[in-house]
Amino acid sequence: MVQDRLTKLRYCMKEKGIDFYMIPTSDFHGSEYVDDYFKVREYFSGFTGSNGTLVVGHDMAGLWTDGRYFIQAENELAGSGIELFRMMEEGVPDIPDFLKENIKNGQTLGFDGRTVSCKEGKELERKLKGMNIRISYEEDVAGNLWQERPFLPAHEVIVLPEEISGQSMEEKLLTVREKMKTSGAAYLMLSKLDDLMWLMNIRGNDVACNPVALSYGFLTPEELYLFIQPQEITAKFTEYASKNHIVIEDYENTERFLGGYDYEGKVLLDEGNINYTLYKILSDKAECVFESNPTEALKAVKNKIELSRMEEIYLKDSAAVIKFICWLKKNAGKEKITELTAAEYLDGLRREIPGFLDLSFPTISAYKENAAMMHYEALPESAKEIKAEGMLLVDSGGQYMGGTTDVTRTVVLGEISPEIKKHFTKVTIGMLQLTQARFLYGCTGRNLDILARQPLWDIGIDYKCGTGHGIGYILNVHEGPQSIRWRFAKGAAEAIIEEGMVISNEPGVYIEGSHGIRTENVIVAKKGEKNADGQFMCFDTLTFVPIDRDAIDTEFMQPIDVERLNSYHAEVYKRMKKYLTEEEEAWLKEATRPMEI
Amino acid sequence: MVQDRLTKLRYCMKEKGIDFYMIPTSDFHGSEYVDDYFKVREYFSGFTGSNGTLVVGHDMAGLWTDGRYFIQAENELAGSGIELFRMMEEGVPDIPDFLKENIKNGQTLGFDGRTVSCKEGKELERKLKGMNIRISYEEDVAGNLWQERPFLPAHEVIVLPEEISGQSMEEKLLTVREKMKTSGAAYLMLSKLDDLMWLMNIRGNDVACNPVALSYGFLTPEELYLFIQPQEITAKFTEYASKNHIVIEDYENTERFLGGYDYEGKVLLDEGNINYTLYKILSDKAECVFESNPTEALKAVKNKIELSRMEEIYLKDSAAVIKFICWLKKNAGKEKITELTAAEYLDGLRREIPGFLDLSFPTISAYKENAAMMHYEALPESAKEIKAEGMLLVDSGGQYMGGTTDVTRTVVLGEISPEIKKHFTKVTIGMLQLTQARFLYGCTGRNLDILARQPLWDIGIDYKCGTGHGIGYILNVHEGPQSIRWRFAKGAAEAIIEEGMVISNEPGVYIEGSHGIRTENVIVAKKGEKNADGQFMCFDTLTFVPIDRDAIDTEFMQPIDVERLNSYHAEVYKRMKKYLTEEEEAWLKEATRPMEI
Repeated sequence: MVQDRLTKLRYCMKEKGIDFYMIPTSDFHGSEYVDDYFKVREYFSGFTGSNGTLVVGHDMAGLWTDGRYFIQAENELAGSGIELFRMMEEGVPDIPDFLKENIKNGQTLGFDGRTVSCKEGKELERKLKGMNIRISYEEDVAGNLWQERPFLPAHEVIVLPEEISGQSMEEKLLTVREKMKTSGAAYLMLSKLDDLMWLMNIRGNDVACNPVALSYGFLTPEELYLFIQPQEITAKFTEYASKNHIVIEDYENTERFLGGYDYEGKVLLDEGNINYTLYKILSDKAECVFESNPTEALKAVKNKIELSRMEEIYLKDSAAVIKFICWLKKNAGKEKITELTAAEYLDGLRREIPGFLDLSFPTISAYKENAAMMHYEALPESAKEIKAEGMLLVDSGGQYMGGTTDVTRTVVLGEISPEIKKHFTKVTIGMLQLTQARFLYGCTGRNLDILARQPLWDIGIDYKCGTGHGIGYILNVHEGPQSIRWRFAKGAAEAIIEEGMVISNEPGVYIEGSHGIRTENVIVAKKGEKNADGQFMCFDTLTFVPIDRDAIDTEFMQPIDVERLNSYHAEVYKRMKKYLTEEEEAWLKEATRPMEI
Repeated sequence: MVQDRLTKLRYCMKEKGIDFYMIPTSDFHGSEYVDDYFKVREYFSGFTGSNGTLVVGHDMAGLWTDGRYFIQAENELAGSGIELFRMMEEGVPDIPDFLKENIKNGQTLGFDGRTVSCKEGKELERKLKGMNIRISYEEDVAGNLWQERPFLPAHEVIVLPEEISGQSMEEKLLTVREKMKTSGAAYLMLSKLDDLMWLMNIRGNDVACNPVALSYGFLTPEELYLFIQPQEITAKFTEYASKNHIVIEDYENTERFLGGYDYEGKVLLDEGNINYTLYKILSDKAECVFESNPTEALKAVKNKIELSRMEEIYLKDSAAVIKFICWLKKNAGKEKITELTAAEYLDGLRREIPGFLDLSFPTISAYKENAAMMHYEALPESAKEIKAEGMLLVDSGGQYMGGTTDVTRTVVLGEISPEIKKHFTKVTIGMLQLTQARFLYGCTGRNLDILARQPLWDIGIDYKCGTGHGIGYILNVHEGPQSIRWRFAKGAAEAIIEEGMVISNEPGVYIEGSHGIRTENVIVAKKGEKNADGQFMCFDTLTFVPIDRDAIDTEFMQPIDVERLNSYHAEVYKRMKKYLTEEEEAWLKEATRPMEI
């Protein structure tokens, strides 16, 4: 099937004089999850992972994806003739380098410019400079071949009252316009959906797991132009819009509007968060300032209301996970449970929590060796049955009116090897060590990463991902600018960890074909002592779910590690018992009892 | 006196139409130590610290220096009318910002362009752009007012045989020219003295503690032009020069030669390591490529011969320090010892070591609260007498034909407070924790710094300097590009830690008016396990001197910290006993006996 589709695509490419066609995985906003409408890459490759770019030439096809998906991609691409390019591995070229080596002078590279970020597009331009390459970005060549393509999603937007947002749109606009002034920009083009939702205090439902509406914002000195599908507008929103100088325009008119606008000053653009087509239009029509969206850093620092609502919802969310683990431990091996039904059970517990909107990402439920795939997705036809042995890794979270959650626990269901216990214990040590960090203001995630990773590096093990990511408030579960990782992509901005930033803390061990372990708490940065040496910072924990004692071997711990675990568990019991049934409480008491040093 | 000199300078500035005159502390090569000839800033300010820049206006004078010197500068500037600007402190402008705020449109800024790096000069140009400021850099206005100015130093150079350098100049030139090719440069201007010495396998004696000759190198596709004072040339060197395509030119002709050269390709320049005057000449005459000197990274990775000679000399150097500590502990309070005579005793022990050339920096011998000043220098008139109480911090090192050493120990001489013990113990934990780091290849010092610093951050204490610096081989004791620190100056390159890099590891505690603690070992990066997760790296230790058990309180240690200390001490005893007298050996045995967990 994939081969037939590629044949059609190549035929069409030939007609249009395109030699290589690139299909990334993206909507027009660089969202993390893409609606079915945007799954053009999946349609042409068969690879279902969330990250991947297909490059099609007349005598080759290649799929680039990252370490999370190597195993999955290998399986899904088998027999398709599509070559797998393992990103970041030694000797594997990235796409610009690959194209530079394979495209010939005078040839044409095609892609739908709305699905390619400005940064990526410019990088391609730079790489292919001097080779007389035409870049054809105006048309969705591949997407147009998809006959039964789904419609663009369009759901009504909701307006958050100030007791939920914690800050009015008016105040946010003031700060944003202040920052634009500093940058010398009269206009701000907002294409990143969570930034726009945050600024407007609205939410939508057009992207799976992200409560955002497909829309663009164009901020002028007087107005905010909102480009959105008319079906998404409610009477309440129309009223809100008129109070807040929001001018509503049709989503499909965005390009035409921006192409015809009369600019009287510079436009602030975030190269990494705008698509190539809009970039081409704006940079052609106006002088541009290339900076991060000023909204990004503002959104990352949660206000007091956001934080206090998050604290509360994390307790309720933790309770759902505790109930789930308690149920799972009791029933594994007794009734038929698969990776999928386990996830459904947990998802069901979340749905019962008042204020539940959606999952914050599809629950990862990975049994035994499946857990070695970091972003494994259990499928109905292949979901593993869970028995009273090995471990189940469950990474999950919810979107609630109180915030966005994210938590991972790896649950022991039977006998596990001493090696697995060692790995599990080291992961626990690292997670708690990072949580307990005291550090001077000015540190970025790059300074702190080793606190979580070092217990694993000590035994020659690494996890091929960052340790932590920012977390939104009723927004994306992955949010910038903060990030805890030991190295950054070249040129990537490293954000200082600010008070009020919410960050995940999730070291892990992934042994292909054997087991996967991840323990993830969510932490909040706050100010500690300030003295002559500077402002010290530390973290509070939001997540209160026991870490499986059955996989802890204190032989690998220092006394301080055991103390940290015991004191965390004491907090878990103290805070969580009130959310539980008598039976669950008894189980939790047992699960959180102190370990001996 | 300082005030008279400033008056004369201001008079001369007026004559030449200069409104602000800047006097940095630098020779023409950005060397760390400057010969008396170059101490113009000291002459005009009275401040004797090694780092500082004086800015003189017609109605102000300001001295900028770093945290190491705040206390010393306060004392030395008292009554001079010169304002102290504490660099890096909140609200303190750097010099370009200060000038931007204080210089007026159309005014003139003066400095001797040979004492200002190209980078600094360009930064000043950038800051003052659009203000119509004339920059007068061609004349040494202040230096010319110094009537009894010493002569430029000029000592004979020596050539290192290959059994000492480990690699011929011919081979080094091949690699350097290879790197120049990659950068598209036909010429390399080498102004940094240790880089030039390394490349040529020669050493000199024109800079205190740095075995380098005042010289410039200009590498063309065929020749290496060496600009050097004629007095420095020996018959042996003339012979070496003719074999190695070295063309000798007079040091004072450098500017004239470069101004008149017929360039047929690009010149590679290191902006941070060339003076502003040469930069102006070269960028005027030729197209320039601005990159780090290719020699810097090559020099930092020691070859096998260099490493094996360093290992050996570090043992002998450690023996001198052990003998010193043994003597000091025995005699403190019994005979009259001052900070200075203690340093002289240690320096004397080093001088007896075969191959001794010089100290690698002036020995820091700081008693009690003086140790809170990181780079304290004891002066004859004020050196403290050492009694059988408190602690003496001694930071010292030697230049030998076997390498360059650097070591710090803080020695207990009597009762010390529990707080000091706590600080000392935390410093020890951090130093050993960094030494024991296992990390993936690709880490820079910024990833690792927290391993040394975290035990102190945990108790709300920071040290206002990096944790470690690169160390030369019979060259500068401070060497790039590697550095272990948690933050870098904006735009500063961060070097990946490579196998063969030699680095200091020196956390500390500095409590103004009370005490100072530093424990410094020198470590060498090497490859560890390589597996599917990558190439792991670790460190070997070169320094084998006991860490004072009298200041260790195991109450603040985890078992692993005690194990690390005990196993280090076991190695110290095992390796060092053969260098000692019977009495010293007995003392060392006691000083290295295991502590109980």
